[in-house]
Amino acid sequence: MTLIARDLSHIWHPCSQMKDYEKFPPIKIKRAYGSYLELTDGKKVIDAISSWWCKSLGHGYPELKAALLRQVEHYEHVISANTCQEILIELSEKLALLCPGLNKVFYASEGACAIEIAIKMSLHTRKIMGEQGRKQIMALQNSYHGETLLALSISDMELYREPYQDWLLPVIFLQGIPYVTSEIDPLWQDCGSYWPNIEDQLNQYADTLSAIIVEPIVQGAGGMLIYSQDFLKRLRSWTLKHSVHLIADEIMTGLGRTGYALACQHAQIKPDFICLGKGLTSGWLPMSAVLTTSNIYQIFYDDYDKGKSFLHSHTFSGNALAAAIALEVLKILEEKQIYQKVREKQKLLSQLMFEVAQSTQRLMRIRGIGAIISADLVLESHQKKQRCGYQVFQNAVKLGALLRPLGNTIYWLPPLNIELKTLLSLKEITIQAINQTFKN
Amino acid sequence: MTLIARDLSHIWHPCSQMKDYEKFPPIKIKRAYGSYLELTDGKKVIDAISSWWCKSLGHGYPELKAALLRQVEHYEHVISANTCQEILIELSEKLALLCPGLNKVFYASEGACAIEIAIKMSLHTRKIMGEQGRKQIMALQNSYHGETLLALSISDMELYREPYQDWLLPVIFLQGIPYVTSEIDPLWQDCGSYWPNIEDQLNQYADTLSAIIVEPIVQGAGGMLIYSQDFLKRLRSWTLKHSVHLIADEIMTGLGRTGYALACQHAQIKPDFICLGKGLTSGWLPMSAVLTTSNIYQIFYDDYDKGKSFLHSHTFSGNALAAAIALEVLKILEEKQIYQKVREKQKLLSQLMFEVAQSTQRLMRIRGIGAIISADLVLESHQKKQRCGYQVFQNAVKLGALLRPLGNTIYWLPPLNIELKTLLSLKEITIQAINQTFKN
Repeated sequence: MTLIARDLSHIWHPCSQMKDYEKFPPIKIKRAYGSYLELTDGKKVIDAISSWWCKSLGHGYPELKAALLRQVEHYEHVISANTCQEILIELSEKLALLCPGLNKVFYASEGACAIEIAIKMSLHTRKIMGEQGRKQIMALQNSYHGETLLALSISDMELYREPYQDWLLPVIFLQGIPYVTSEIDPLWQDCGSYWPNIEDQLNQYADTLSAIIVEPIVQGAGGMLIYSQDFLKRLRSWTLKHSVHLIADEIMTGLGRTGYALACQHAQIKPDFICLGKGLTSGWLPMSAVLTTSNIYQIFYDDYDKGKSFLHSHTFSGNALAAAIALEVLKILEEKQIYQKVREKQKLLSQLMFEVAQSTQRLMRIRGIGAIISADLVLESHQKKQRCGYQVFQNAVKLGALLRPLGNTIYWLPPLNIELKTLLSLKEITIQAINQTFKN
Repeated sequence: MTLIARDLSHIWHPCSQMKDYEKFPPIKIKRAYGSYLELTDGKKVIDAISSWWCKSLGHGYPELKAALLRQVEHYEHVISANTCQEILIELSEKLALLCPGLNKVFYASEGACAIEIAIKMSLHTRKIMGEQGRKQIMALQNSYHGETLLALSISDMELYREPYQDWLLPVIFLQGIPYVTSEIDPLWQDCGSYWPNIEDQLNQYADTLSAIIVEPIVQGAGGMLIYSQDFLKRLRSWTLKHSVHLIADEIMTGLGRTGYALACQHAQIKPDFICLGKGLTSGWLPMSAVLTTSNIYQIFYDDYDKGKSFLHSHTFSGNALAAAIALEVLKILEEKQIYQKVREKQKLLSQLMFEVAQSTQRLMRIRGIGAIISADLVLESHQKKQRCGYQVFQNAVKLGALLRPLGNTIYWLPPLNIELKTLLSLKEITIQAINQTFKN
């Protein structure tokens, strides 16, 4: 029995129509290093999406491996309720510096669970404070925050929501977000023309909202959309004025993706909650975290019999192996000045995607920030139902890049430390993959 | 600044009232091996609850470390959508043998997310099959399935639910479960006297249920309660008769805890979904899995444009490091005949807890199966509000055991391979911890 047959006998792959694998089987991974996946036939494939946006320092980073090996000599995992672990303290101290003021850290494993924890904390404070009227959550149009039921409820993704509609919770989606193509877009600095419409929507819920949740600056699964930093700034002012919590889902954007440790820094705002995941361990191990303020923390801090405890449990909260890697990730990002290098690389990524557009004449709405660049395929009406993005994916894989479009949105979201020559190859592969898709 | 002060400055520990740590600080972990935690002062503490029920082979198991080091030489993590990874195939082939017929495996990281995935799959099949009327979920009284919102909705835990009541989803809780003290209890073999009442409840929802979810045989956080295998058998017959899915949450019971690979084996039943977590990696790394049948899988299997895909995504689905460890765990459990050894150890655990009861005269309702033994503290009315369980915990930690009661339920849930002499120490510590609690 072939490896593929064995795979498809038992593994239900995530985010997949399994029948698709009949015609285009999964690629056989042998090793991975830097920005490359090496297949069992020796072929090298560029990991152009950092394995679902998580491998921010690429594969097999030696210092991260060393950190794992150091920790495993002591222990791998100990319950974090009622224990004190130096590796977790060091990590937490570093995380507490990311956004001054947000210095309390709660650990989980999945990104979606960090989102659920932040929302539970917000709703729970309302209960403790007797703010019975504040029970609603607002998210943005085109949002994505994960696929556990609560996370899915606050995600504006019809494709993912539709089968579970009867079970989803009611959430308000803010419309009319001022999207931009880059920081050069005038809307980036001033979205005043959009604001009255937005404020009208917000004001309706000023007294009933517990929290507003956003993916700061970049919305990922919703189509790699970038919005005005001024909008985020104004939204934060509005939430402060009306005592509404702001939750920043930095699971994709966090730790350098947009050229700063946090995407919130573009708008110089401090939210009430920050959720981290994916790149927190540079995609080595599942770990997520919720950062929040002492103010929020203190609301729950009281004698046990007052009934204010936040009793959320998670077996692997603060897993020591993941913590050791996350700590090393934060050190490397700083020591190697990765944030700054991403800002420098931004222009190059943009230039290369423009070259793809010029060469293929098949891309529109190019947009980018930090180490993210995306564009939509130009489709004629008869092509709109042909899964062109999926064809580009198939062609790209054959040509040597794991480029995995979101529908018909092509994007690169490579390791932050990807080399120039790899980016140049990626550009060539993208051009060919698009040209092959539309050659007829 | 002391280690404890640094810890409490930044870490929000799970399932904790943080103020409790002022008077009883977290214990400082230095290393962990076998059934022991070693503290920074050199003291050894028995991990009597397997670090929240996950460290089934104890800490630092050498072959598991070796498996981790082997995998890290190849790669640590690659996106599992569109890739084929031998380590995941080998793991999936082994998992597919656990319960013949349940041979499709979907991977996540947190236990609660495995639960949410199984429920989403059940509800989604109803949508695809046009069974619009089947939208309800039923769980058992005293159930616990996790704390993401959907998992919490199907958990009958008032303490955890209360702050989020307005957001919880409506779920039916089946009452009148035939609890037993052990397999010797006549109800274990025949719960016929309880069944008519149960069947009456079930029949009301025969046409509207999508699924019933159970922790098979043992309910963990609900109080380490054990119920009749005959009840589980009858429940399975009823679900088959009425085309209702049965979801088995084996996150705590799975991989040996009750003396078999799966607790479902006590009732010789085959559910539609099995959720695994915790012990799947012997508590090394976060990994969870949903096993299901080809029948369920085939309902989603069609051309992409039919819109039947199960598009749930999770970044770390099938993480290679966790998979390498899980594969090794399964091999060790078989090769070292751990399941059989747990069945042999069951009597000893029970005998030791009876000795604690006899010596202290403070335990009632002793119940046990496999490597789980629990009992409730006998309390006078004025003691019921005194957090006696928490006092037992504090005393036990000082005496050298991390024994962490559920309220006033004392339990041992040690590594499956705990040594006899460690169990004997645990017994002595438990006796002293209880006596000290009630000495006045």
